[in-house]
Amino acid sequence: MAHDIKLVTETELRRVVPLDLEAIDCIETAFAKLATGKVVMPPVMSMALPDINAEVDVKTAFVPGLDGFALKVSPGFFNNPSLGLPSLNGLMVLLSARTGLVDAVFLDNGYLTDVRTAAAGAVAARHLAPATVSTIGVLGTGVQAKLQLIATAKVRPARNALIWGRDAGKAEQLADEMTALLGIEVKACADRADLVAQSQVVITTTPSKEPILDADWLHEGLHITAMGSDQEDKNELHPSILARADVLVCDRISQCELLGELRSALETGALEDKNRAAELGNVIAGTGNGRQSEDDITVCDLTGTGVQDTAIATLALGKVRRTNAGTTVTA
Amino acid sequence: MAHDIKLVTETELRRVVPLDLEAIDCIETAFAKLATGKVVMPPVMSMALPDINAEVDVKTAFVPGLDGFALKVSPGFFNNPSLGLPSLNGLMVLLSARTGLVDAVFLDNGYLTDVRTAAAGAVAARHLAPATVSTIGVLGTGVQAKLQLIATAKVRPARNALIWGRDAGKAEQLADEMTALLGIEVKACADRADLVAQSQVVITTTPSKEPILDADWLHEGLHITAMGSDQEDKNELHPSILARADVLVCDRISQCELLGELRSALETGALEDKNRAAELGNVIAGTGNGRQSEDDITVCDLTGTGVQDTAIATLALGKVRRTNAGTTVTA
Repeated sequence: MAHDIKLVTETELRRVVPLDLEAIDCIETAFAKLATGKVVMPPVMSMALPDINAEVDVKTAFVPGLDGFALKVSPGFFNNPSLGLPSLNGLMVLLSARTGLVDAVFLDNGYLTDVRTAAAGAVAARHLAPATVSTIGVLGTGVQAKLQLIATAKVRPARNALIWGRDAGKAEQLADEMTALLGIEVKACADRADLVAQSQVVITTTPSKEPILDADWLHEGLHITAMGSDQEDKNELHPSILARADVLVCDRISQCELLGELRSALETGALEDKNRAAELGNVIAGTGNGRQSEDDITVCDLTGTGVQDTAIATLALGKVRRTNAGTTVTA
Repeated sequence: MAHDIKLVTETELRRVVPLDLEAIDCIETAFAKLATGKVVMPPVMSMALPDINAEVDVKTAFVPGLDGFALKVSPGFFNNPSLGLPSLNGLMVLLSARTGLVDAVFLDNGYLTDVRTAAAGAVAARHLAPATVSTIGVLGTGVQAKLQLIATAKVRPARNALIWGRDAGKAEQLADEMTALLGIEVKACADRADLVAQSQVVITTTPSKEPILDADWLHEGLHITAMGSDQEDKNELHPSILARADVLVCDRISQCELLGELRSALETGALEDKNRAAELGNVIAGTGNGRQSEDDITVCDLTGTGVQDTAIATLALGKVRRTNAGTTVTA
């Protein structure tokens, strides 16, 4: 039976769904719903294609109360840069929660994922960072380095920011860009220990397979969000960091123990009990412990969840409809 | 980076991708590739939504040598008929095997799945049924009852066919329709034992949760394809049938032992060793045993595989391009 489907391109989505407080609030609400236990979110479907240096991840989540649920395909083809193409692409499909019919196809090349991922970092900072943040430190120089800084600055307006990258030139370039964009002083910082010492919030956004943050650098009042690891071979934080944190939070414990920083901490034995971690949704809903004092060291391990995709896709369809964006296809 | 994406509706796909010998050959080749061991096919992602009487399955497979790979979303919303909508819907996305970019979106509402599923039945009959088939028996009266009969008749031209349904009126109606369509005598048959006794090929296409075929009805030279079970609570064949078959074939053993007839046979203990089963791809490739004599009893357990989706989506895109069907979107 033919029905109408909204088809929306990346260009239109960039116009209609900015990384703003509405997107951050939307992701916050989604995590809170995850804490109610009513969300159905199967494990990530992951297809490793080592012969062609690629991987494909599929995520979904059904959130009772929302009109739709998203199915997201995220291909990572890591030889693409040699072809002049980005490594990460993909699309989201939004299906009706009432009939399962396709409501929308977002040909976003990963844009909505970028937004919902950065928004989760802001949600973590909102609930875990100290109330006053003068300096935000970012490790990495890619898309998420930029977007995490933008999103975090919306919930913790800082006076300045520091950026570290393996490529110092890229760090300088991003610092200049962000200074212009945010209107605060953003500088490149060549020394990771220095960056951590000067920051109250540190966000790691790299695909590193070896720790880039040392446990010795922890200091009172520090909040760290590690969002780079989303595969079983990635690791940004020294495992002892998770053990030494006063407050340890995961977006989804069952996922972080497979794909996140929690995995390394458990595997190395640095952390003995995964139940020391709370879930971000519980912290938001008040059923899990967040920061108890300004001196606490807090760590948030983000691997990216289907509930974020369902939330951002639902938000996007509302905005698309209100602004008459996209194309309607009868299929 | 913007690129071109083919968008194709169900109506266009029905016109361009018929259930014909080309589709059957395409699925046969895909199964043969599966036997080479080079195909990457993760387990089905399945999201059960019992509160709303729904389920969502996602399948994919990467087949080296093909230009693309499909990602298929199959929602089953079983309250839909009360809304005047079909229970099964969905879409397929074809991604480039070189870059991961989206090459095509098939808004097919499950049509390509119908074709590739029926084609697999024909492939099973081609390799397992006796050389001469005078009567094909079908259990069920739904879309697959019809398509399996059409597809099987293409590889085993029969003189007549029999259809059994729980609803005798629907069986009569489908029999009349198929008589007109196939130009052979197709009759409804109220007695399942009679149907099996008169048939050389029997195809079960129901969502039954209890056996509808009894082991006592088996006779020399019989081939059975059971394609109804694709969930862990479904079962069409009495478990002893699998044990008594001379030749037992699965589309994918690792999937059938979770979702197919193989599951019931192993769970009840009727079958002790899953390795008694061969995979359809191996039978096609000659590395697994199919029918050895005209008297053999053969059974094929089909649960539906991602490699079929990748194959039919690749075939579809070729046909769409050659006929200038579909719409090109830049996204």
